[in-house]
Amino acid sequence: MKFAYSDKVDSLVARVEAFMSDHVYPAEQEYHDYVENSDTRWVIPPVMEELKKKAKSEGLWNLFLAEFEDYGAGLTNLEYAPLSETMGRSMIGSEVFNCSAPDTGNMEVLARYGTQAQKDDWLIPLLNGEIRSAFAMTEPAVASSDATNIQCTIDRQGDEYVINGRKWWTSGAPDPRCKIMIVMGKTDVNAPRHTQQSQVLVPMDTPGVNVLRPLKVFGSDDAPHGHAEIVFEDVRVPASNIIGAEGEGFAIAQGRLGPGRIHHCMRLIGCAQRAVELMCDRVETRVAFGKKLSEQGSIREDVAKSICEVEQARLLTLKAAERMDEISYKEARDLIAMIKVVAPMMAQTVIDRAIQAHGAMGLSQDTFLAEAFAYARTVRLADGPDQVHMNSLGKQIIRRYAA
Amino acid sequence: MKFAYSDKVDSLVARVEAFMSDHVYPAEQEYHDYVENSDTRWVIPPVMEELKKKAKSEGLWNLFLAEFEDYGAGLTNLEYAPLSETMGRSMIGSEVFNCSAPDTGNMEVLARYGTQAQKDDWLIPLLNGEIRSAFAMTEPAVASSDATNIQCTIDRQGDEYVINGRKWWTSGAPDPRCKIMIVMGKTDVNAPRHTQQSQVLVPMDTPGVNVLRPLKVFGSDDAPHGHAEIVFEDVRVPASNIIGAEGEGFAIAQGRLGPGRIHHCMRLIGCAQRAVELMCDRVETRVAFGKKLSEQGSIREDVAKSICEVEQARLLTLKAAERMDEISYKEARDLIAMIKVVAPMMAQTVIDRAIQAHGAMGLSQDTFLAEAFAYARTVRLADGPDQVHMNSLGKQIIRRYAA
Amino acid sequence: MKFAYSDKVDSLVARVEAFMSDHVYPAEQEYHDYVENSDTRWVIPPVMEELKKKAKSEGLWNLFLAEFEDYGAGLTNLEYAPLSETMGRSMIGSEVFNCSAPDTGNMEVLARYGTQAQKDDWLIPLLNGEIRSAFAMTEPAVASSDATNIQCTIDRQGDEYVINGRKWWTSGAPDPRCKIMIVMGKTDVNAPRHTQQSQVLVPMDTPGVNVLRPLKVFGSDDAPHGHAEIVFEDVRVPASNIIGAEGEGFAIAQGRLGPGRIHHCMRLIGCAQRAVELMCDRVETRVAFGKKLSEQGSIREDVAKSICEVEQARLLTLKAAERMDEISYKEARDLIAMIKVVAPMMAQTVIDRAIQAHGAMGLSQDTFLAEAFAYARTVRLADGPDQVHMNSLGKQIIRRYAA
Amino acid sequence: MKFAYSDKVDSLVARVEAFMSDHVYPAEQEYHDYVENSDTRWVIPPVMEELKKKAKSEGLWNLFLAEFEDYGAGLTNLEYAPLSETMGRSMIGSEVFNCSAPDTGNMEVLARYGTQAQKDDWLIPLLNGEIRSAFAMTEPAVASSDATNIQCTIDRQGDEYVINGRKWWTSGAPDPRCKIMIVMGKTDVNAPRHTQQSQVLVPMDTPGVNVLRPLKVFGSDDAPHGHAEIVFEDVRVPASNIIGAEGEGFAIAQGRLGPGRIHHCMRLIGCAQRAVELMCDRVETRVAFGKKLSEQGSIREDVAKSICEVEQARLLTLKAAERMDEISYKEARDLIAMIKVVAPMMAQTVIDRAIQAHGAMGLSQDTFLAEAFAYARTVRLADGPDQVHMNSLGKQIIRRYAA
Repeated sequence: MKFAYSDKVDSLVARVEAFMSDHVYPAEQEYHDYVENSDTRWVIPPVMEELKKKAKSEGLWNLFLAEFEDYGAGLTNLEYAPLSETMGRSMIGSEVFNCSAPDTGNMEVLARYGTQAQKDDWLIPLLNGEIRSAFAMTEPAVASSDATNIQCTIDRQGDEYVINGRKWWTSGAPDPRCKIMIVMGKTDVNAPRHTQQSQVLVPMDTPGVNVLRPLKVFGSDDAPHGHAEIVFEDVRVPASNIIGAEGEGFAIAQGRLGPGRIHHCMRLIGCAQRAVELMCDRVETRVAFGKKLSEQGSIREDVAKSICEVEQARLLTLKAAERMDEISYKEARDLIAMIKVVAPMMAQTVIDRAIQAHGAMGLSQDTFLAEAFAYARTVRLADGPDQVHMNSLGKQIIRRYAA
Repeated sequence: MKFAYSDKVDSLVARVEAFMSDHVYPAEQEYHDYVENSDTRWVIPPVMEELKKKAKSEGLWNLFLAEFEDYGAGLTNLEYAPLSETMGRSMIGSEVFNCSAPDTGNMEVLARYGTQAQKDDWLIPLLNGEIRSAFAMTEPAVASSDATNIQCTIDRQGDEYVINGRKWWTSGAPDPRCKIMIVMGKTDVNAPRHTQQSQVLVPMDTPGVNVLRPLKVFGSDDAPHGHAEIVFEDVRVPASNIIGAEGEGFAIAQGRLGPGRIHHCMRLIGCAQRAVELMCDRVETRVAFGKKLSEQGSIREDVAKSICEVEQARLLTLKAAERMDEISYKEARDLIAMIKVVAPMMAQTVIDRAIQAHGAMGLSQDTFLAEAFAYARTVRLADGPDQVHMNSLGKQIIRRYAA
Repeated sequence: MKFAYSDKVDSLVARVEAFMSDHVYPAEQEYHDYVENSDTRWVIPPVMEELKKKAKSEGLWNLFLAEFEDYGAGLTNLEYAPLSETMGRSMIGSEVFNCSAPDTGNMEVLARYGTQAQKDDWLIPLLNGEIRSAFAMTEPAVASSDATNIQCTIDRQGDEYVINGRKWWTSGAPDPRCKIMIVMGKTDVNAPRHTQQSQVLVPMDTPGVNVLRPLKVFGSDDAPHGHAEIVFEDVRVPASNIIGAEGEGFAIAQGRLGPGRIHHCMRLIGCAQRAVELMCDRVETRVAFGKKLSEQGSIREDVAKSICEVEQARLLTLKAAERMDEISYKEARDLIAMIKVVAPMMAQTVIDRAIQAHGAMGLSQDTFLAEAFAYARTVRLADGPDQVHMNSLGKQIIRRYAA
Repeated sequence: MKFAYSDKVDSLVARVEAFMSDHVYPAEQEYHDYVENSDTRWVIPPVMEELKKKAKSEGLWNLFLAEFEDYGAGLTNLEYAPLSETMGRSMIGSEVFNCSAPDTGNMEVLARYGTQAQKDDWLIPLLNGEIRSAFAMTEPAVASSDATNIQCTIDRQGDEYVINGRKWWTSGAPDPRCKIMIVMGKTDVNAPRHTQQSQVLVPMDTPGVNVLRPLKVFGSDDAPHGHAEIVFEDVRVPASNIIGAEGEGFAIAQGRLGPGRIHHCMRLIGCAQRAVELMCDRVETRVAFGKKLSEQGSIREDVAKSICEVEQARLLTLKAAERMDEISYKEARDLIAMIKVVAPMMAQTVIDRAIQAHGAMGLSQDTFLAEAFAYARTVRLADGPDQVHMNSLGKQIIRRYAA
């Protein structure tokens, strides 16, 4: 049992922290202003590409990819955790280091299951940060937390797959750099429940792909990233675009969720930690009714509760990461469920307190709190709502301990 | 003790409910689409003016104004409560009946303190729904929950007042129909703490009034209502624009807060009630893991907790309304503090559960939940943050019961 | 809608309050000391009988019994509510006015279903406060929240019923004045699920009734009232001891639960209200780190939250009482479920805060807080655990609102 | 960063676990029955002394004492943590291994500050488990969380100290084996605030020591350990009984609190973990409304939340232990405050859920849950109430992060 990092990781953390302080936080305003002042909002602020170039040149690039030393930095999940947390402290942080969702998950899927051609065409440009990608799974018509509900069809017709369906919450699809989508659908509705699904690669410019509208979160379109509703109407792709084999879609989706979930949790811990720090700073500088906010008991209790919750969620996430590294994603599934239940709710709660301490400013575009709150709230639904994880976790735990 | 309404009120409730069902809910989509598809977003959807005209013609108009029978419908706060709740079920509901903030508060101030000229110029057009108004009090530089912190200056120079300062969260100021603002500032910084402030009427088109930008709440600009940051630079208005007398600003502000707070609470109870109803409908129609959501124990518990919380907050708000009617706003201040603490937090919690039951759709523009959540969250800060009310309420209660 | 009581009720409340202040609170210490210092603990402090005599002579007696004007005070549930709350402020209060469980429920059952002989033998002495009674329903071997699980058998053999089974949490059975028990068991295991049960009167001294031991709540035996585990071994009673008819046991049990639950809620509101008052008094008189506790923000927030929760639960309970009076117990079942979910949890929370503000004294026998906490905690399980009520309430609400 | 223990610790954990399973859990009923069936309750069940003998002979003895290799097992706080947790799973567990409070704290104080004579007289018998001890600090008349409030006087008169005062919550004092008390009082009320206090050794049989009564927690006397109220009336001890020097009492008390607090947290984590396990077992074996409790969503959520909370508190406690070992108690004070805030509240919550899942049985003497609940609730007040720790923690954190 040891709660300190190796020198190697400490040094990486220090480098990412310095990069964030020197380059990322100072660019947040410019980034947002650029989007705000553009006509369409679906534009990439040049500062982002500059930051990416700089991070890449410093070797702070593709730090995730725990299992694929060829492609990434050769870090374990546990080693990546504090880096991901640090990047997550800014809503534009992860992308700077080419570590943002859904590209990370898509790159892992391609690294694990992709053919050489798929890797050449899509994985390499993604690793280089030249393009971005999306993952189209959730559908408006069914409870998509149960992936067997999915209705999108992927029909083999000769050398092609023909895709029909409606997806939404396809994050990143509105980004003009997004060139490729992984689409989950059913290739065989008569197969057993968990082998009906397949995943295929669909270039964004394929005819029949209609990006209808950006969905909003609390009224924000999250531009230029965004979350799209997309109709697939007789969309045809070569049969070689399938990932793995027909019927493997469900298993591939399960595989991506472990790392995907823990990455979200790491980032959210970064969000929550920064929220606490902003809160501390704020309450020290405001006076009401003759007393600094920082001297008021209830404010101090809010800070105390928050730091306790952040630190606990962090430790739990680190333990989950270690188990993923040491044993297997499957064996670590109870710990992954635990952090998926804990971290987003914790972040929502802690950020809510920080908002409250900021007064109305905390709700506005003048701090990162409102954006971070929306992110935390979203993750309580993304990759399965809290209730689904609590249910399966509870079931596991009862099975373990019932005599 | 009696928990039923008079026939008169029951009948009014039924009429407002029918109006909401027949005209308001069906117009929500059109209203939002109009704003969404306009270039500037700061435009008034024609459907709103049509609805207002219709409501006015049916006599469902100016139902607030408990104490001013000449101007309003002659209802008590208690009688108005269920009407306000019903209107509050739609984010565009209150305006339809000319019962929306901050006009309601401004009209009450003008009815109580306005000169005949002020009434003619501003109150009558407001009562007629011809113009809208704003109330500029909160400032970015200081903790404005403590009104003695306010820094905006209102200097008497000859026959004029000259206003300098910076305000934000001036709700409704970006609305193109907004013609008049009540501005709170200091006329005498050397006076005792609570008589330094005054309120003056400032037409929106007065030179020196610079509406800088709309503030966002969770990324939403809340167009076409909006919340503005405004700089006042040597803004000159006639001395006759003062409301009441110099030094009465603090007292006038306190007076408006009682009804203002309870109106917000009533509307939020409507929001929460509708959220529960939407949640019930949703869970009955979605299936996950082979079971309707409505059959799952944790969903039922969420519904049960929610309805308990809504009903309790409603009863408390009604009791506060009765006390305001029967005794005085001042004597009812503990009950007003209680509902201000209870109702927004309750609404936030209940709506959050409804969002969760809706899946990601609950966060989007496709239901009213996201907007309602933002409203509830905002009111936990508006008119004083929860902590300020809890602190003063706790102090009162301790004084009452300590031997 | 009206939140004030009639003069009649106000006057009764004032009389009960005065009686509590003058006689009951001052007797609490003597009552507990008597039990503490007796050898067996299962003794009745003489002060209790004196208080009963006094209350009876003042006409403050049998104030419950909403539907039976012949026997009680002719008050509605709504009128009784504030009286029950006031009595509930002391753990020995309700008994003083002959309004304590389980006698109240047993008297209602006898008044409604009893034969004249049963009334003469048991109801009259109970109404007179000469004897006490118990209700044996819960069993250790099965989840008794589902009454169809019950295993105790009541077999008709000739002119007798023969009872075999094991009950526990038979409250009041250890009281030396307890002379009669109503026992719930199955007369026909082959009947439909809800007509298998019957209720019979079993005098405590019937051979085969073995009171095994007092159960403790958090280590307290709750003497001299107590909660017994009882074995029934070939217990024989005359066939005339049946209440109503064979197969009516389930329906009779359901009928008693409405008033039984609301009475508990009323008393718990009294407990919580007194806890807040004690807390206020305590924090005003203690100093830590150079400041009175009452001046600390977090203490004030605890007081504020507590009073909000107490008042809301009170109003909800009053509304439930009114609905029981105005419509029917059956139609009011959603409101009864609501208060059963709300009031005990509220009381537990509020009393917990009061304990915290008292320091370790709050856990001890030196205040009524520890006893009240145990009572609140117990009621979260008695007459059905929170979860059962939330589940059925959620189901009702979903059915009401789902389109 | 590493979340596994060394083989040495794993092996110790396995041995303590086996001892608990083989000897301690099976003895719980006998232990409690012995106390229950004795006349005075203040008797030591022989099984305890047998268990102690057995544990000692196996070398599972004095496993705490992180800093005193001469006396204890030479384990660090971090190594001791999982052992303490395992012992804490039974309310009689810690004592079996001579690791129970307040002896642990008293032995540490004597090991650190005691003279050779004090060690010979009191430390050695304590280490041998031949006697027990108490620590008299809390007073009824003042808020003792602020140790400067203490009023007990320790006056030097010639070769003696004369002690006058009233203490309560002196845990373990009623135990017939308790032979020695450490008493905290003031030797110089004119000294600076934190050097007024001193600690002296007072044998229990010293004239003037009047053990008045056992205090109860939720009505339980916690026999045969107990918590006493004690009056000191001209109690005279030799001057050599002082611990350290006059004026060092406050510093010594601070020093003992670090390990004292973390030991309580470890034990409470054991309590909570066992509560979850019992809950799992219970819900798997009970059926209500046609379904096993373990199949109900809300039960699974309760289990899931509980295991998340237990695991998080455990990790935080381990980190605090490591910091205490690696740096210093003083530098680890924020982490100690964090676990003191987190662990007792977590345990109270988790045990409360387990009680609920057990039905009324969960409140009774038939499981360890009620006792464990009372223990958790008590620790929220012992060694400083939650509020005091949150306040000082919040202050530290604000200081750290405010720019």
